[in-house]
Amino acid sequence: MAAEPVWSVDPRTGKPRERVAVEATTEDVDRSVRAAHEVRESLADRTGRAAFLRTAADLLDGARERIVATADAETALGPVRLTGELARTTAQLRAFAEVVEEGSFLDIRIDLPDPGATPPRPDMRRWKIPLGVVAVYAASNFPLAFSVPGGDTASALAAGCPVVIKAHPDHPATSELCAGLLRGAAAKAGLPEDVVVLVHGFDAGVELVRHPLVAAAGFTGSVRGGRALFDAAAARPAPIPFHGELGSLNPVVLTPTAVEERAEEIGAGLAGSMTLGAGQFCTKPGFVLAPSGEAGDRFLDALAAGVAATGPAVLLDHRMREAFVAGVAARAALTGVRTPVTPGAGDAHTVGAGVLTVDAARLTGREGGSEGGSGDHHLLLEECFGPVTVVARYDSRAQVTEVLAGLPGNLTATLHIADAADDEDAAPFLAALTPLAGRVLVNGWPTGVAVAAAQHHGGPYPATTSTSTSVGATAIERWLRPVTYQSAPARLLPPELRDGNPLGLPRR
Amino acid sequence: MAAEPVWSVDPRTGKPRERVAVEATTEDVDRSVRAAHEVRESLADRTGRAAFLRTAADLLDGARERIVATADAETALGPVRLTGELARTTAQLRAFAEVVEEGSFLDIRIDLPDPGATPPRPDMRRWKIPLGVVAVYAASNFPLAFSVPGGDTASALAAGCPVVIKAHPDHPATSELCAGLLRGAAAKAGLPEDVVVLVHGFDAGVELVRHPLVAAAGFTGSVRGGRALFDAAAARPAPIPFHGELGSLNPVVLTPTAVEERAEEIGAGLAGSMTLGAGQFCTKPGFVLAPSGEAGDRFLDALAAGVAATGPAVLLDHRMREAFVAGVAARAALTGVRTPVTPGAGDAHTVGAGVLTVDAARLTGREGGSEGGSGDHHLLLEECFGPVTVVARYDSRAQVTEVLAGLPGNLTATLHIADAADDEDAAPFLAALTPLAGRVLVNGWPTGVAVAAAQHHGGPYPATTSTSTSVGATAIERWLRPVTYQSAPARLLPPELRDGNPLGLPRR
Repeated sequence: MAAEPVWSVDPRTGKPRERVAVEATTEDVDRSVRAAHEVRESLADRTGRAAFLRTAADLLDGARERIVATADAETALGPVRLTGELARTTAQLRAFAEVVEEGSFLDIRIDLPDPGATPPRPDMRRWKIPLGVVAVYAASNFPLAFSVPGGDTASALAAGCPVVIKAHPDHPATSELCAGLLRGAAAKAGLPEDVVVLVHGFDAGVELVRHPLVAAAGFTGSVRGGRALFDAAAARPAPIPFHGELGSLNPVVLTPTAVEERAEEIGAGLAGSMTLGAGQFCTKPGFVLAPSGEAGDRFLDALAAGVAATGPAVLLDHRMREAFVAGVAARAALTGVRTPVTPGAGDAHTVGAGVLTVDAARLTGREGGSEGGSGDHHLLLEECFGPVTVVARYDSRAQVTEVLAGLPGNLTATLHIADAADDEDAAPFLAALTPLAGRVLVNGWPTGVAVAAAQHHGGPYPATTSTSTSVGATAIERWLRPVTYQSAPARLLPPELRDGNPLGLPRR
Repeated sequence: MAAEPVWSVDPRTGKPRERVAVEATTEDVDRSVRAAHEVRESLADRTGRAAFLRTAADLLDGARERIVATADAETALGPVRLTGELARTTAQLRAFAEVVEEGSFLDIRIDLPDPGATPPRPDMRRWKIPLGVVAVYAASNFPLAFSVPGGDTASALAAGCPVVIKAHPDHPATSELCAGLLRGAAAKAGLPEDVVVLVHGFDAGVELVRHPLVAAAGFTGSVRGGRALFDAAAARPAPIPFHGELGSLNPVVLTPTAVEERAEEIGAGLAGSMTLGAGQFCTKPGFVLAPSGEAGDRFLDALAAGVAATGPAVLLDHRMREAFVAGVAARAALTGVRTPVTPGAGDAHTVGAGVLTVDAARLTGREGGSEGGSGDHHLLLEECFGPVTVVARYDSRAQVTEVLAGLPGNLTATLHIADAADDEDAAPFLAALTPLAGRVLVNGWPTGVAVAAAQHHGGPYPATTSTSTSVGATAIERWLRPVTYQSAPARLLPPELRDGNPLGLPRR
């Protein structure tokens, strides 16, 4: 099989910029995984791991201008956003260096022997060890923070797992540049470069998750692509953990008193959140339950005004642009769907943002199960990547809870209530939203994901394929498993587990 | 479809004892899951949950004589073992009541708002909530501790999840008796009985894992049955976590100096461990790497003498007896396999324990992958349920690591080394065993599973299908997922997350 070339493409023109790599063949993938597997022991030393992560952050920061220019040229996300994303990415690498040094992720538990117990209790010492080579699938919409140098890579390396990264075709040049810097950082920190390996190509991604030496996978992307890889991971002779973030509708519910109080503010806020980054955030609010009636109309007017004022946007690639144009057209064609602001094609390379509305009654009436919607209108309850949101107008509280009961899982769910304490819809709607999402917001917008200890970026399927988070310190837990040593003499134990706690680690 | 009767059968005679239930139809399973789902909110109160778990333990202890007699009549495990198993089971229920009250499993993390941060940090409060209805699949070999009132049930109820339990066909009467006591305990504690529902039948088990309202599953059993259910869980429109313990070979490695020092002691110890409970423990040592030569011969003689002295054993059911007889015959028929003590059929209802030996050279030579063994001899590296173990004789350290590299995952791995500090094989063999198992023992036997904070009962596939443990306090984590509330006013927050920590819970 001839190796297919990989081109970096400018989404602002649709034209190829440069040829940056070739797609990996089956043999290439096998060689890449074996290379990463061979050097896994080099990551066993936590001091070296932490130094490597910090060096990687330094080298990425040092190449800021080149990285931002390269990423902007192939994603059109703009230098401001990309500069911020790089800062977040390197801060994340440094944060994981601290996690590695602090050591509580090792979850050390020690039970001293108790020969008098019934039955006698032996000496037991438990900690967590790295799973092995982790396959990382880069995301289209975050060429840095959720791609080659992103959270999956940082947390896997922090756990002591080498990574083989499948580049996203939307930013192969950025991927090559960042992978080179990560490998250079490894060498500078005295580690083998193959603790980070990059591969390109759709088929290579499938081969990767099937490779017997791959021990776990992290993915951020579409339901379709992510589910195919999840299925391949589950179908292996020895299945592996697949931590995927697949898609999220991010429902918003507005109570009647909230729109009476703040219709214009909520409409303007939603317009900003749903068009941020051209609507390409995984936390974009894509579905809104708003009351029918005059106050709800005012909210909709404010939303429509905000969205109509948005200029044309360049999406990450032309395939996405086509999917957006087709997706909004299919939704707009459904019976009873109106378009206060019609989304769709702008010029040959851009799209225009829009708003669709429908009566909530069209989304109810299907019995049971985890998926709702009535017939074709179910499409309105599926994520549409890009700057569009669907507003369903409801007449009763029962209608809200019925529609919510039919929604799939989400990263976020948002509730807008009256500022005063007497919004009687607040508690029942919050109770109906909590089962749907990993983060539930009140009177805010979901597109900002604060980096904080209490953050959770995950949610019921298809938001994520596991109960884990891909953001924050606990993301490291995905790449570890516990091992208990029973009655092992001190000389055979790692220093982390020895009497007297020579390394001063948190232990129980 | 006519409902099939479910009979309790005496394994000592193969004769049906009594008709105790009927198999659940598709409609029965649907009704059971919906009933459990409907009452899930009744478990939200942690005080009530803890009281329920303690009441369940009390009622089970109060029915000790009847439970032990019923279980013995359909498992032949004997009153001593079953009395001990019941004590462990009720202790486990009480331990989970304490876990519920103590509250650290809620993993509460609170970030107070910081408007001065860049970007401003909102108020974020994270805890863990129950997933929903948990399907529990009871094990054949532990009719109490890993069945209806066992660890999966106790940890799921502790997490706040109702359970629908699929009874094991080897002990339907015990299952009915225990389920009745659990439901009675719920009523006594003021909860709906349907927080615990029991179903019988193979097909019901498959329906259960596919039901849209089932949110997670726990399983202990065979690779074949467990893998089929794992596959069904992964193939759902919305896949669910499937925590299965499927099978384990539990390899043992003896260093040359260990057998020189303690050949007879190790042989006798292994004979006791592999025949304990008629070899029906999931931690039975089923594969041993012993050095060739004189000291290794002495070990083998001691092992054979111990095993030969074991009387005939009744297995859990006649199907298992047939599988054992066929399994040991297939292994004994392989080229180069010898039988110092021939395992196989005893009288019509029993089996005799045995030992098989083979040269380790027959188990090497296959390249790569996670499964080893050469051709047909791979069968020797698969678990054979019942009182038999395979001893592979090795000539070199390289042969040991090569055979180990081809083994599947295990619950345990055991190393016997010289007591003196100068056993040069100890460190490399321990390093080769650690990737293979969740618990690594030195100079001990794996069949005792101490209940301790540092215990881990799990391991790489097929030992378990996840990185979780099914024994110990952390087993509760399998049935929870994190949710973060962002900027929710205090009146909408659960008391556990409110300012001032009104319930005095561990929080970060």
